[in-house]
Amino acid sequence: MQALIIGAAGMVGARLAASLAADPGAITGLTLADVVVPRPHASSLPADAGTLDLTDAAAVRAAVARRPEVIFHLAAIVSGEAEADFEKGYAVNFDGTRNLFEAIRAQADYRPRVVFTSSIAVFGAPFPEAIGDDFLSAPLTSYGTQKAMGELLLNDYSRKGYLDGVGVRLPTVCIRPGVPNKAASGFFSNILREPLAGKEAVLPVSDTVRHWHASPRAAIGFLRHAMTMPTETLGARRCLSMPGLSATVAEQIEALRRVAGDKAVALIRRQPDETIMRIVAGWPETFDASRARALGFLGDPSFDAIIEQHVADELGGTVGAKG
Amino acid sequence: MQALIIGAAGMVGARLAASLAADPGAITGLTLADVVVPRPHASSLPADAGTLDLTDAAAVRAAVARRPEVIFHLAAIVSGEAEADFEKGYAVNFDGTRNLFEAIRAQADYRPRVVFTSSIAVFGAPFPEAIGDDFLSAPLTSYGTQKAMGELLLNDYSRKGYLDGVGVRLPTVCIRPGVPNKAASGFFSNILREPLAGKEAVLPVSDTVRHWHASPRAAIGFLRHAMTMPTETLGARRCLSMPGLSATVAEQIEALRRVAGDKAVALIRRQPDETIMRIVAGWPETFDASRARALGFLGDPSFDAIIEQHVADELGGTVGAKG
Repeated sequence: MQALIIGAAGMVGARLAASLAADPGAITGLTLADVVVPRPHASSLPADAGTLDLTDAAAVRAAVARRPEVIFHLAAIVSGEAEADFEKGYAVNFDGTRNLFEAIRAQADYRPRVVFTSSIAVFGAPFPEAIGDDFLSAPLTSYGTQKAMGELLLNDYSRKGYLDGVGVRLPTVCIRPGVPNKAASGFFSNILREPLAGKEAVLPVSDTVRHWHASPRAAIGFLRHAMTMPTETLGARRCLSMPGLSATVAEQIEALRRVAGDKAVALIRRQPDETIMRIVAGWPETFDASRARALGFLGDPSFDAIIEQHVADELGGTVGAKG
Repeated sequence: MQALIIGAAGMVGARLAASLAADPGAITGLTLADVVVPRPHASSLPADAGTLDLTDAAAVRAAVARRPEVIFHLAAIVSGEAEADFEKGYAVNFDGTRNLFEAIRAQADYRPRVVFTSSIAVFGAPFPEAIGDDFLSAPLTSYGTQKAMGELLLNDYSRKGYLDGVGVRLPTVCIRPGVPNKAASGFFSNILREPLAGKEAVLPVSDTVRHWHASPRAAIGFLRHAMTMPTETLGARRCLSMPGLSATVAEQIEALRRVAGDKAVALIRRQPDETIMRIVAGWPETFDASRARALGFLGDPSFDAIIEQHVADELGGTVGAKG
């Protein structure tokens, strides 16, 4: 089974490619695509890598003409950039997604599994106590709007039999490794990743802010499960909120204290930012992910486990500021 | 205040134009547009009429360049046709809507009230007992998908300040005058309109089928109220399910019996149609329209009133098959 990963140079895409290279399952070949050339992983799995601009419909058709049985569509302009550049956000996040689905539809006798990363940003306040899969999509950002429209297309193209889609609403990935991107949610990771490396981090919101998280490993697990799960029972509702972990900033900090000690916690500097506070106030806090759980998606057991995983995967098992 | 009606040759559009011509309120001029030239109504209200193809972005920009303060966007390919012709449905119902919103965005210092007719087809089974405004859009048709995407765009363009949108999810209009169109919902009107005119009508579903209705007068009232209502309290959720009337086919028939007698009812011929039964089984039955009611939208008082209104407006007060 050939797999195509669109957005393979991104944090999640690169990890998914590495995961499939290490443990391919039924995958016999991998094509990595992104706006920059993704780095293929050394492995016995045949892989090639190249650039793909989703806004170029002809290029998307050419990529799909190789008829991969599985397509992971992870490519997106992040929320902050989509909000700042209205046209670019719609061009990449919406038209790009539609170009992909149209390129698939144009191929006769072809119905690939399409795993689409959506986002909890499809939901907007006011929220119920826990957001179930039958709560409306009322996004408060253009990014969320574009993802919600992509979900609707995924459902309709699946219903018509053009593709076999699964939409995966990823929680905020935490601890996000590497350098910050333009996402306003960056601090959720910064306040853990930086102190774990012995560096200072800024906390721009109050300790009582609650949010919905998943580790990088859990996120890759969601995507891999979406690749192989049966889809017959999904009906016309192909998009699922993944089982994240609901935690306040205070709970994140206490987990950090348990794993890395007071010295790490002392590196968190409180510096309220009205803009970020306002943005975050519109974000969801807790979900009812029972539908995804019943379908076999597995989340993280605790925030301690999320932090320990980061220490193992990114820091070679060593905390920089233990004390 | 100048108003533009897109879709002015359709049943609802023509009635809205007639209503504004008869009782213009703050409207001082009317432009009627459709794929065929709409017939302007004789009135003291300055009006012009012309063709407009929503899929022609340049033509849409030209129509909007006249900067009407109110735009009614009623144009659509109906559900049956959008299901049969995937590309045409998306081109008109979605790209056409986007062309309109983009043409508005392209005008500097311009933020018209845009009244967009959406549909209860944005919802799909399984349903709760009454569908509230916070229930998800999970359409089971391409038409419903296109309307749901239009709603998302309307919300996002309103949030960004490009336009001041109100989305009006019309119940099924009943009694729909004139000749049947390609909508699968046609029988809800046929079983009343045809017997009232002394003609036979076919009922393709069971008497227990429940659905959500509004008279033509109520529908025009919804659109007129959406034109003038304050929108500050809508927040980011600009689309509202209108207060329809929930009734079974049996209740419709009993209302017909009360207004027009047994002879009219005897003209209904039961001829089950598996295809229509299957389509209708996926349709919503009852809504919780309390949000729209609180905002001042007024529905029909009873099915008897709906039938009496049709007799007054369309039949000159005379039932063809009284007996």
